[in-house]
Amino acid sequence: MHLDLLFNPKSVAIVGASDHPGKIGNTVVFNVLQGSPRKLYPVNPNEEEVFGLKCYPNIKSLPEVVDLAVLAVPAKLTISVAKECAEAGVPYIICIAAGFGEIGEEGKAMEERLRETIRGSKTRVIGPNTMGIIAPRSGLDTFFTPIDRSPRPGDGVISVISQSGSVLCGVYEGAEDTGVGLSTAIGLGNKVDLNENDFIEYFKNDDLTRCIVLYLESFTDGRRFLDLCKEITPNKPVVAIKVGRTERGAKAASSHTGALARGSDALINGVFRQFGIERAYDEQELLDYSKVLANLDHIDGDRIAVLSNTGGFAVIATDYIESKENGVGLRMATISEQAKKEIMSRTLYFASAQNPVDLTGSVTDETYGEVLEILQKEKDIDAILILLQLQAPQLTEGLADIVARIVNEGGKPAIVCAIGGSFPRPMLKKFEQKGIPAYGSLKRAVWSLRTLYDRGVYLKRIAAHDE
Amino acid sequence: MHLDLLFNPKSVAIVGASDHPGKIGNTVVFNVLQGSPRKLYPVNPNEEEVFGLKCYPNIKSLPEVVDLAVLAVPAKLTISVAKECAEAGVPYIICIAAGFGEIGEEGKAMEERLRETIRGSKTRVIGPNTMGIIAPRSGLDTFFTPIDRSPRPGDGVISVISQSGSVLCGVYEGAEDTGVGLSTAIGLGNKVDLNENDFIEYFKNDDLTRCIVLYLESFTDGRRFLDLCKEITPNKPVVAIKVGRTERGAKAASSHTGALARGSDALINGVFRQFGIERAYDEQELLDYSKVLANLDHIDGDRIAVLSNTGGFAVIATDYIESKENGVGLRMATISEQAKKEIMSRTLYFASAQNPVDLTGSVTDETYGEVLEILQKEKDIDAILILLQLQAPQLTEGLADIVARIVNEGGKPAIVCAIGGSFPRPMLKKFEQKGIPAYGSLKRAVWSLRTLYDRGVYLKRIAAHDE
Repeated sequence: MHLDLLFNPKSVAIVGASDHPGKIGNTVVFNVLQGSPRKLYPVNPNEEEVFGLKCYPNIKSLPEVVDLAVLAVPAKLTISVAKECAEAGVPYIICIAAGFGEIGEEGKAMEERLRETIRGSKTRVIGPNTMGIIAPRSGLDTFFTPIDRSPRPGDGVISVISQSGSVLCGVYEGAEDTGVGLSTAIGLGNKVDLNENDFIEYFKNDDLTRCIVLYLESFTDGRRFLDLCKEITPNKPVVAIKVGRTERGAKAASSHTGALARGSDALINGVFRQFGIERAYDEQELLDYSKVLANLDHIDGDRIAVLSNTGGFAVIATDYIESKENGVGLRMATISEQAKKEIMSRTLYFASAQNPVDLTGSVTDETYGEVLEILQKEKDIDAILILLQLQAPQLTEGLADIVARIVNEGGKPAIVCAIGGSFPRPMLKKFEQKGIPAYGSLKRAVWSLRTLYDRGVYLKRIAAHDE
Repeated sequence: MHLDLLFNPKSVAIVGASDHPGKIGNTVVFNVLQGSPRKLYPVNPNEEEVFGLKCYPNIKSLPEVVDLAVLAVPAKLTISVAKECAEAGVPYIICIAAGFGEIGEEGKAMEERLRETIRGSKTRVIGPNTMGIIAPRSGLDTFFTPIDRSPRPGDGVISVISQSGSVLCGVYEGAEDTGVGLSTAIGLGNKVDLNENDFIEYFKNDDLTRCIVLYLESFTDGRRFLDLCKEITPNKPVVAIKVGRTERGAKAASSHTGALARGSDALINGVFRQFGIERAYDEQELLDYSKVLANLDHIDGDRIAVLSNTGGFAVIATDYIESKENGVGLRMATISEQAKKEIMSRTLYFASAQNPVDLTGSVTDETYGEVLEILQKEKDIDAILILLQLQAPQLTEGLADIVARIVNEGGKPAIVCAIGGSFPRPMLKKFEQKGIPAYGSLKRAVWSLRTLYDRGVYLKRIAAHDE
């Protein structure tokens, strides 16, 4: 299936379009309009004009068959409008309305009617009970969350598929806030038709997607899912949350999207490991792991160098790196004597060239760069964790350019972590925008390094298996 | 020892005071000046005036014996100035200079000389190799980090004692950024004289401190530390990081503050548990746990209610709460049938009154308040996790007032978690400022609830022991 048209429709109809601020049909029109230019048809039998555009009474009356119809109408109207769309031959419809399978038997019956309605037609359905789609790659934005309350991310190489609108929201707003770009973000909702596998299959061959991110409450077709992942993960990382890990969690998922969440936690763990799917447990981990996997190569070994201008955080990082309990069980690399000498020749006498390298609070951008270059050339280092106390008086915004250049030239994976409040935030964003994964928490940075290491282990394992 | 004078000196001398921006002696003068009004004497033999204030050549020449002298001079000058202070009878000196024990034998010898210098005098030393002190309680600020790069927190009830300046920085900037107040924040540095136990003892009886937070690389006197904690923790929570958990971590700590970090990780765990010290592992956990312990009562049982307007996050939270692996092993409370009916009478038909309660995206401030009131009255709920998708169109800033009022009246511990990027941040800050611990990450919220539960378990255990 070619979802190209869904992600970049030439024409969009919004059913339930409205000029009344606060209405979902108002927000969706606004959001589609502010994206890239494309034909937009408001549909509402009670309106003449919406946002100054001519409003049509129904799908039949539109001057053309649109590529995409967004149904911003209540559950009960959704089925009749879907029928119109199917009859007109609209290829894609997004059904926003809640009140389907998640409310119980009555809702499940309505889902079945929705399925019936499109059966045999060329119309494919996203939802119901869904946020819809944003595709920064094409400027499409059908979400019903207002942009001022829920800023959208820029274009990037991560595609997110989520069975929860709020988790999707958490991921894309987190992305926007920290400078991570997304290629597409899709709310699956109750999956009466299009499901995770349809999208995963599309992203498999999609050059604009370098990492696939999933939040799932249920597997529509678990076997197909695993087969797809098996094909994809050797070339493209997949990061996934599967909820319903506990009985109560599974029950909560059922009230949410009507999902039948089955499968023990340990089983999922084993299967995910086997098929190279990186497991995440919450919105933060999804973003943390996907951005490091999308931007950096895997790590070939477990020897980590820590380059820091802050003593205390470097000590905490060392414990996190080396410890197996409350840590990731990797190793602190050994820096060669030659490199140590070179480092000390560039720093103050009370700096330390052991690993962690502590350049102290008086470090400049240039010294950071020079020492990073030395570490990039070390044979016995597999990855570098750069800890920055950006509050140090001589560090400037220019450091992001220096670090990005040296990491690109040196080729050794490196991530950045800076601790503090509001001050480091825009600087971290700058690192991120230059392709250096950047973290505001030590723990999250170290666990993200482990993700790169885990991917290396997986790739080695399947390579050995292929031989 | 009465440290009152240290935390609220009537007069401060700054040795190494300077009018040259970028110099440490310039920043410290600026920072002390912008705090509460107090007498300030710049000291520098090479300057006539600093910040328009008369500058004195040395300590002897000051018109009075100051309560506190901040030594913003290099390591080698520090000892001679400390000698002057001791001779003049200055009660407290803060030695900023690095280049002591953390650089090896030569530095350790200098520390010994510094100790010799004050021996027998009434002068007590903080440092060397220290950030100094901020005390929002009195407006004192001797830190050498510029305020524009490192904003200071407001007044609060948490006191932080840290052997690392950067960790201290991470904690107080994180506090400022999220609306958490601090009472005092102290950099211990290399602890040639005043050490963690001196400050812990002070805070034991300090009404302005409701929670004591520690970052330690070494224990100056482990037995005294534990004796103090044993006295304190029944009444006042203590949260502590002890680094050097791994061999490499201990070595890194030694290069940092010259600390001899000993004691296995498992031993520390056992001892901390026994003495009711909540163990944290990084800057984020310090703040997360201390703010919940400082603001809320402990939890008597393990039955958690989740009140949400977002389905997906409520499911993740449920798994985190109930799961023993990658979770905290508490329980989802059972909501009474009567309460469920009352909740459903106030919500849309597709909401859910099971636990997690899902009020859906169309919820208003008022409905949130009404349902929270219902849950506050439930007998079989020990604590409430309030999940907010603040992007929902009908939620406003007023919700913080409503929640704070109901939690104060109801008395059941409740915390707030809101996911997203920049938009929820100021609203979360508002919750925090009203005494409701607020988190921007689901995981951190759930683990903080567990901290409240752990404290309940500890208090029960010592109560049983006393009987």
